[in-house]
Amino acid sequence: MLIKEVLLGFLAGAVVFTIGILLGHFAIDKGSSVPEWIRDASRDVDESIIEKFLAELDTNEIKENLRELTKVPHMATTPGDEATVEFMLKRWNDPKTGLDNAWREDYKVYLSFPDKTNPNKVSVVDPENTVLFTAREREKAYTPDQDDPEVVQPYAAYSPAGNVKGKLVYANQGKMSDYELLNRTLDLRGTIAITRYGGEGRSKKAINAAKFGIVGVLVYTDPYDINDGLVSESETYPHSWYLPPSGVERGSYNIDFGDLLTPYLAAKDDTYRRPKEDITGIPPIPAQPIGFEDAERLICELDGDDAPIEWQGSLKCTYKLGGPGFKPTSLLNNSNVHMDIYNTERLENSANVMGIIRGSVEPDRYVIYGNHRDSWVHGAIDPSSGTAVMLEITRVLGKMLKEGRWRPRRSIIFGSWGAEEFGLIGSAEYTEEYFSKLSERTVAYINVDISVFANATLRASASPAAQSVLFTASKQVNAPGTTTSVYENWIKYFNRTSPNYGVIPNVGFLTGAGSDYAAFMHYLGVTSMDISYYYDRSKTRARIYPAYHTAYDTFDYASTFIDPGFTSHQAVARTAGNVLVRLADSLLLPFNCSDYAESLERYLSQAVTAFEQKLADKGISMESLKKAVQLFRETATKLDSLIRDSDLAKETPLKARRINDQLMLLDRAFLDPLAFPELYGFRHVIWASRSSSVPTFPGLADAVEEAESTDLKEDWDQAHKHLSIVTQAIAGAAHTLGDVI
Amino acid sequence: MLIKEVLLGFLAGAVVFTIGILLGHFAIDKGSSVPEWIRDASRDVDESIIEKFLAELDTNEIKENLRELTKVPHMATTPGDEATVEFMLKRWNDPKTGLDNAWREDYKVYLSFPDKTNPNKVSVVDPENTVLFTAREREKAYTPDQDDPEVVQPYAAYSPAGNVKGKLVYANQGKMSDYELLNRTLDLRGTIAITRYGGEGRSKKAINAAKFGIVGVLVYTDPYDINDGLVSESETYPHSWYLPPSGVERGSYNIDFGDLLTPYLAAKDDTYRRPKEDITGIPPIPAQPIGFEDAERLICELDGDDAPIEWQGSLKCTYKLGGPGFKPTSLLNNSNVHMDIYNTERLENSANVMGIIRGSVEPDRYVIYGNHRDSWVHGAIDPSSGTAVMLEITRVLGKMLKEGRWRPRRSIIFGSWGAEEFGLIGSAEYTEEYFSKLSERTVAYINVDISVFANATLRASASPAAQSVLFTASKQVNAPGTTTSVYENWIKYFNRTSPNYGVIPNVGFLTGAGSDYAAFMHYLGVTSMDISYYYDRSKTRARIYPAYHTAYDTFDYASTFIDPGFTSHQAVARTAGNVLVRLADSLLLPFNCSDYAESLERYLSQAVTAFEQKLADKGISMESLKKAVQLFRETATKLDSLIRDSDLAKETPLKARRINDQLMLLDRAFLDPLAFPELYGFRHVIWASRSSSVPTFPGLADAVEEAESTDLKEDWDQAHKHLSIVTQAIAGAAHTLGDVI
Repeated sequence: MLIKEVLLGFLAGAVVFTIGILLGHFAIDKGSSVPEWIRDASRDVDESIIEKFLAELDTNEIKENLRELTKVPHMATTPGDEATVEFMLKRWNDPKTGLDNAWREDYKVYLSFPDKTNPNKVSVVDPENTVLFTAREREKAYTPDQDDPEVVQPYAAYSPAGNVKGKLVYANQGKMSDYELLNRTLDLRGTIAITRYGGEGRSKKAINAAKFGIVGVLVYTDPYDINDGLVSESETYPHSWYLPPSGVERGSYNIDFGDLLTPYLAAKDDTYRRPKEDITGIPPIPAQPIGFEDAERLICELDGDDAPIEWQGSLKCTYKLGGPGFKPTSLLNNSNVHMDIYNTERLENSANVMGIIRGSVEPDRYVIYGNHRDSWVHGAIDPSSGTAVMLEITRVLGKMLKEGRWRPRRSIIFGSWGAEEFGLIGSAEYTEEYFSKLSERTVAYINVDISVFANATLRASASPAAQSVLFTASKQVNAPGTTTSVYENWIKYFNRTSPNYGVIPNVGFLTGAGSDYAAFMHYLGVTSMDISYYYDRSKTRARIYPAYHTAYDTFDYASTFIDPGFTSHQAVARTAGNVLVRLADSLLLPFNCSDYAESLERYLSQAVTAFEQKLADKGISMESLKKAVQLFRETATKLDSLIRDSDLAKETPLKARRINDQLMLLDRAFLDPLAFPELYGFRHVIWASRSSSVPTFPGLADAVEEAESTDLKEDWDQAHKHLSIVTQAIAGAAHTLGDVI
Repeated sequence: MLIKEVLLGFLAGAVVFTIGILLGHFAIDKGSSVPEWIRDASRDVDESIIEKFLAELDTNEIKENLRELTKVPHMATTPGDEATVEFMLKRWNDPKTGLDNAWREDYKVYLSFPDKTNPNKVSVVDPENTVLFTAREREKAYTPDQDDPEVVQPYAAYSPAGNVKGKLVYANQGKMSDYELLNRTLDLRGTIAITRYGGEGRSKKAINAAKFGIVGVLVYTDPYDINDGLVSESETYPHSWYLPPSGVERGSYNIDFGDLLTPYLAAKDDTYRRPKEDITGIPPIPAQPIGFEDAERLICELDGDDAPIEWQGSLKCTYKLGGPGFKPTSLLNNSNVHMDIYNTERLENSANVMGIIRGSVEPDRYVIYGNHRDSWVHGAIDPSSGTAVMLEITRVLGKMLKEGRWRPRRSIIFGSWGAEEFGLIGSAEYTEEYFSKLSERTVAYINVDISVFANATLRASASPAAQSVLFTASKQVNAPGTTTSVYENWIKYFNRTSPNYGVIPNVGFLTGAGSDYAAFMHYLGVTSMDISYYYDRSKTRARIYPAYHTAYDTFDYASTFIDPGFTSHQAVARTAGNVLVRLADSLLLPFNCSDYAESLERYLSQAVTAFEQKLADKGISMESLKKAVQLFRETATKLDSLIRDSDLAKETPLKARRINDQLMLLDRAFLDPLAFPELYGFRHVIWASRSSSVPTFPGLADAVEEAESTDLKEDWDQAHKHLSIVTQAIAGAAHTLGDVI
């Protein structure tokens, strides 16, 4: 009975106890239950996902991508280009390894082509019009693909058609100073100039020439600049990576980027197109590129004084300036160079291929990764090495996505841009059409165009905000064939001493418009990066890989000479892919505003050294600029402290969003759409293109140099104005970094 | 014992039960506990707070604010202005009713003043230079405050100094068409024109005149336009609200807003200032305003033909055009009008007073409420009626804040702008200095300048996005002295038929630059509103309240004739304050993008009617514009559905933030900084100022009209270009409203 009573009592107690527990647990509200979205909103980048992603990026897949992409020449808007559009769409719509969605977007853009039935001709004709010499119309074929009828004749896109004849002069790189030097002893009017690539923009060689009355410009690639001096067929491709004697660099001869008829407007069917005559920045006189084999014949028979020592190249003779024209002992004596250029401009439909992965937590934040798709010929390196890498990144991410293993926090947009070679057209039209949406929401743009120039080292140019994520990513990837990291390898080739970090890899600035990052960095003000594998500069002096823009930039060339094991491609895929996933998945954006402050301080210091006294002499003070940079540093430090003192995973997601907005919009804060009215698309007052050699704020540097050269009051006024513009931009950016209210 | 056992058992059971409850509640984890910030993040506007806030807005407080603000004349940068700065700071820093923080921000701005020791003179002199008549230099004083030595002489700010003499002509309103008509029969070269206010901008009267060789311009206010025809002292102030015969409207004679020497740059001490000669939009010849008493003498003695019937006013004579000059029977015959203008331009420090309330949940979102502080004289109506309202709003909100009863979700910024009368300078400099920060974060701008023109009805102009919140707020406030709502009263005076809502109050568009909303609406692209109480237009024809910009705009005038009980002030405070709190506290921003679509459709329909055939005749199609408007409508509908189908209080705060960003940035999406290169600050392609009388897209309308008048190819090109610009802007805005990815 005792036991029974105890048991009964125990039982009763247990029942009451249990009821109590149940009531306590269910009936007494602890507030409300924790919503599911909290976990998602606070989730940070998953390092194990990144490891798996990097491991899956495969050299063989990249190689096969490249093989497919380079089957035929795929110059913009040609059938070969259309085939790559279909290929990209097939891959990005693949049910097992594709993206959430992919589509094409077409623009009707203004392109320039040679006439297939009437090729451009460069010849030498004697006074009786007998042709004594004709330059090659096609490059010599060493492999069947180089013989493809779709290989476009070498030409200077946007050079006007025209038929010109004149005595030849040699004008070095076609810089203003080159023509000025020639002009001291020669009457250049009516002459034709032969110039070599390098030292000056393509179209500027002709624009400068026209100012001296020159009527036509030939451009060739000197073996000194591209082949480390080698000239013979036995030493060049297919025997090495060097350019064969008949190789010709094609290229777009324009200064502005984007469709030339529709600046700031997306080139739709019925968009307003300005008259052709209003286009600036293209050659006013015919221009044509030729190979060094032909250039040698022309240059080595020139009459006249010896060209200066810096003008000499590796052709087998002493370069002379020209009589003008050829020397008396030459068979070409008294003859003219004759250029028959039949380029025509046409409106053609060019496609961007777009692919997206929808973000799970912040779908309205975009990380954009892009490369162009169009090439000049087969374009194995330029751009297909980058496209092959992009496709491998999308394959692995697509697989993770389709298998339900991963979905990024933010949305990812992939862009396969059209018509880049003609002037970054596809990417520029895209940013024009979606300007507002992209301005509001884009976190970053990653550009991988030529992914592998060579096998030595990573090279990156970027907004300073992105330096830290580039470092983080490159530390996690091994350099090809080593156990050291890409970062440790990189620091050996490009480095600088940072006041804050000591010796670190030197990330370049994106000051130009060399690839599709231009519209993002300069026009949209999006934090951008350009990533590739690059040369050991101690091993070669080549301006660029020698097959650049020639018929030799083929799969064979790339896989034999540039990156046989595709391990450098893989290293780029891993580094850029790692950056991409970190940007997409990190709770806090991996941008560093104090690194930006350091860059501004570098620029300020350069500006003070170069300009402070000169400006002071005109009564213009740099104090406000100094204060603005100091304010930027202070507010950057403040934001860093706020970040350090926050536990964002535990606080309201609106706090992470707020700080992320400050970081995302930092580059945007430097935009001034009126700062450079003459330069299409350049709105970022820190990184806009610059003529001055002083590495500092471009508007200020160029304006001071102009004012110095003229010493006009109105030009010093412009210098003062640019000082105020950059000061206000930096102070304005600083205001975005401090306390939000 | 039974009782004891039962009690013991009960007690034991209770203890066990309680332990169970406690264990159940505390020891068994329900996941993690609900973070505190969830409640805050999901909290919506609190209607009971709004009710209390509205109830506390007090007529007497507004009246006392007005009395204090209007004690002395407070023209920009004068000691009186400085006193109002101190007053605002004292109020906003009040420990019991102040804001979180308040401070002043100074700009060094370019202002124009008459010379106190050498007043401007308008006289009539005979050929021997004998002065026959002199216009008043000061208005007649009816009350002591009008006699204050700080009352500035009536003048035309930015009129150049100069000494000119010529025969008088009457040029109606100084429109181009007015001068053209005169020019048909008269040689205007060397004449002086007298014009009346209205019909044309102040400075344009002089700019237009100069094109005809006219050397000076007088401007007066015709009693027809301001006094419903009344002219005698016995019928005007202080006997009524009408303008006394000696009253003169001062004003700024400029077209562009913002500091004229530093466009797009905040006017700091060492900011670059362009040369005075580069300023456009100000009179090239002397201008001076005078009273109708003096104007009557001049006009009624003119010789020449009768002026057209529409040119006649209420002065006691038939207006003639001028011989040029006076009629033979006049004492003034053969005499010249002589203008001695001694205006000088100076750089002066002008202060904005800023006050803030920090937001609790989204401090990085700003609702800005502003009015200027500077007046021409005592400025009781313009602008102090608005400032008195603003101070009452901040008093009540500050009290709720200091008492811990309320803190807004978003941050609120109050701006008391300086130097508005000279061209919206303080607000423009503010938007220039903080351009990036404000662009990124500003939800809305509410402008209440003259809060009460008259007692009849609410009047509002706004971005269409804000129509709905204006309606919501005005429905909750009673019209003064009635039990009907401000909304119901409003609809009687201003209404239109909306395809969607039927008859609703007509909210105007903010197409001009009439007050400080300009920099926010047009330059920043911030959804803006301008709110006031207004006339019954059936009762008066007055261009504006008659004491506008005169020495009679005093506390006595305002409290006797404009709003004796201050109930209209209170109605504006309640309506605008209600809008403010809703914008600051609502979980979902109370903006409606479908209302925007309706406005675009109105504009499109006007454009099609007026221009489609004319454009088609030139081969220019409007189809893309139609499609863009249609796309805007579709994406707006889509966003509305998303909002309707969401329960934002229960979902991740990032979703509300995402939708709010879409709504907040909608007006921003219409900005194009290159669309109107000649117009300072006008970047909003829908609401920019327009010359054409067709109420539609301004760039298109003006370009088509220009093209029609010249029929030049390049002008039709410009029309096509503006068509493309507005099409791209609308499509771009539509892209921001659809699915974010």
